[in-house]
Amino acid sequence: MSLSMGACPHAWRHHLHHRGRMWAASPAFRRQLVLLRSLAPTTCAYGGRASSSSLRPHAMSAAAGPVYEADAEAVVRRITPPLDRARHKGQAGKIAIIGGCREYTGAPYFAAISALKVGADLSHVFCTKDAATVIKSYSPELIVHPILEESYSVRDDERESVSSSILTEVIKWMERFDCIVVGPGLGRDSFLMDCISNIMRHARQANIPTVVDGDGLFLITNNIGLVEDNSLAILTPNVYEYKRLVQKVLNCEVNEENASEQLTALCQKIGGVTIMRKGKADVISDGKKVTQVSTFGSPRRCGGQGDILSGSVAVFSSWARHFLLSNKQPKETSVNPMVLGCIAGSLLLRKAAALAFEKNKRSTVTTDIIEFLGQSLEDICPAGW
Amino acid sequence: MSLSMGACPHAWRHHLHHRGRMWAASPAFRRQLVLLRSLAPTTCAYGGRASSSSLRPHAMSAAAGPVYEADAEAVVRRITPPLDRARHKGQAGKIAIIGGCREYTGAPYFAAISALKVGADLSHVFCTKDAATVIKSYSPELIVHPILEESYSVRDDERESVSSSILTEVIKWMERFDCIVVGPGLGRDSFLMDCISNIMRHARQANIPTVVDGDGLFLITNNIGLVEDNSLAILTPNVYEYKRLVQKVLNCEVNEENASEQLTALCQKIGGVTIMRKGKADVISDGKKVTQVSTFGSPRRCGGQGDILSGSVAVFSSWARHFLLSNKQPKETSVNPMVLGCIAGSLLLRKAAALAFEKNKRSTVTTDIIEFLGQSLEDICPAGW
Repeated sequence: MSLSMGACPHAWRHHLHHRGRMWAASPAFRRQLVLLRSLAPTTCAYGGRASSSSLRPHAMSAAAGPVYEADAEAVVRRITPPLDRARHKGQAGKIAIIGGCREYTGAPYFAAISALKVGADLSHVFCTKDAATVIKSYSPELIVHPILEESYSVRDDERESVSSSILTEVIKWMERFDCIVVGPGLGRDSFLMDCISNIMRHARQANIPTVVDGDGLFLITNNIGLVEDNSLAILTPNVYEYKRLVQKVLNCEVNEENASEQLTALCQKIGGVTIMRKGKADVISDGKKVTQVSTFGSPRRCGGQGDILSGSVAVFSSWARHFLLSNKQPKETSVNPMVLGCIAGSLLLRKAAALAFEKNKRSTVTTDIIEFLGQSLEDICPAGW
Repeated sequence: MSLSMGACPHAWRHHLHHRGRMWAASPAFRRQLVLLRSLAPTTCAYGGRASSSSLRPHAMSAAAGPVYEADAEAVVRRITPPLDRARHKGQAGKIAIIGGCREYTGAPYFAAISALKVGADLSHVFCTKDAATVIKSYSPELIVHPILEESYSVRDDERESVSSSILTEVIKWMERFDCIVVGPGLGRDSFLMDCISNIMRHARQANIPTVVDGDGLFLITNNIGLVEDNSLAILTPNVYEYKRLVQKVLNCEVNEENASEQLTALCQKIGGVTIMRKGKADVISDGKKVTQVSTFGSPRRCGGQGDILSGSVAVFSSWARHFLLSNKQPKETSVNPMVLGCIAGSLLLRKAAALAFEKNKRSTVTTDIIEFLGQSLEDICPAGW
């Protein structure tokens, strides 16, 4: 724990309660902001004191360059907005998940409900008609748009007009979103992939931050131009997706000996994107620095945890962006809100997975982990009400 | 309890915690492996000391030949893989259920969710289009493929092409699975039966272990060639399904006086398959030895418990196969992982049913039992984290 106030939830609660919207301007917070900015590679990246005990040499070779353990708890506390009774619906975040097809309905649900459980106000899903009824049935909390189509449901001579009307429909909503997540349960249908490419191009033009996961990574790996030079894009590959990305973009194999240099090179080659390489430790870079979160979560590897992560990262990166924008720091010392979002999302999933595993052991499934997102966030960053 | 370590969950937890991936190589485990291999019919089969108190003479006539009570807890502990933070999604098992039609949706759901609750990482269901929406809506944890068809939805002149495209679709996925379960809620539609026959033939060519239950047993009873000489096939008949199987294959009636000889003969006649004859005791044979699990479960006989069993057996037999392969024992002393999977699945269901009945009494339903799979496994084999 690097921050004196963070060490005591009661002090924190008291502080928040009395400061309300003055939060960001308090002396304590200004001190924290300075910490947040001082990201010299000789000290601990992203906010904390260098803590050798929290560095895990197995996660990243010592020869791989400066990879620092993020003080992820401090990051979560900094970027999570204070709860304020004067706020309106939507101000804590409006997230959209683009995914869900005939085969996959769980993944977009997990991502969308996780966004709400982390604290977003509204969570949308854009999916195929087949998937929509099912996703709606999982939860009345979500707004589900049954507008995507797969090849099997579109005649060849209709493809262009259907594609165009899908884009028009998505565009109507796009400007409202603080972040979109492209990929959970998207599938790999060729017509759908074309539509998603159009949506991603539009999101970029509209400056909407975009988290790309799952089948979205399959799409962009084969069409890297979709995220090239987009500093508002976050890629969250698992071990297999990372391998394909490295092969395609760097034209070589994954090199664990120089893992951090390779990750940095990958970000730089794609140009300004943030990549979180998921694994035993989640390793994050935007092509400038490399940081990691290695807090232990759970040894269960049930499918769906990546969807919790993408939904959470969408919310946290939106909050980080808002936090940094509202604190108007000089450009040259600015930290990347996309990186902060990854750090926070990674930590929260790990904490929630640990609590779920403690309760459910080997029978832990993704739904069990989602149930603990709230408690995990409260443990790190009490709501103060 | 025949193993000193197994007698103390704390010692076990400590052991697992400190050994991690070295688990299988530890001296204690090597000793257990020796026990596991020494399956002489003059001592207790599958791992334990002969325990006269655990043998239930009513379940199997004393005149019926050497039927030994399995030390099922020891089997569960041996084959359940250690949890390891370095593992990736899928490494603890990928299971698929082939079943679910217009009438039946609960059975494939029970089998698929049980596989996850036992500890598999991914659980798929291949079912008809009508069944898919409902099965998906039961749980976002499952990956449900709406690809099967029944006669009523296929024109006569389309049958061949539809059948072929169903097989193509399943084949795309087949290689990924550690085990498939054929039958839960499959129904008996003639067109569907033909498609499933093709799928079973392909699974066999691809060396994918196959548990056959419910309507899958109806199918193979009428077409025994589908499992003939397949040592990776497990049949799990209940009293009626067993009767039909005996009539068809041995051309006689069930003989309780020589039940174990008859079961052995049935396995031998079909050729190398493993059969678990479900009943008051679950009696298991691969044509060589006969062992049973008679731990008391619950007096409730609500429908669906067989589906829990088939999903659990799929996971445990995959784990047993992996355990035995990774320990490279000499062929001549090898035990049959399919038999170990049956023993473990049988015990776990019985334990979970007992806990569910204790809580819910006469109102116990299958969902209540599934809720206790995790605790039952933890009681037998603590996750150790």
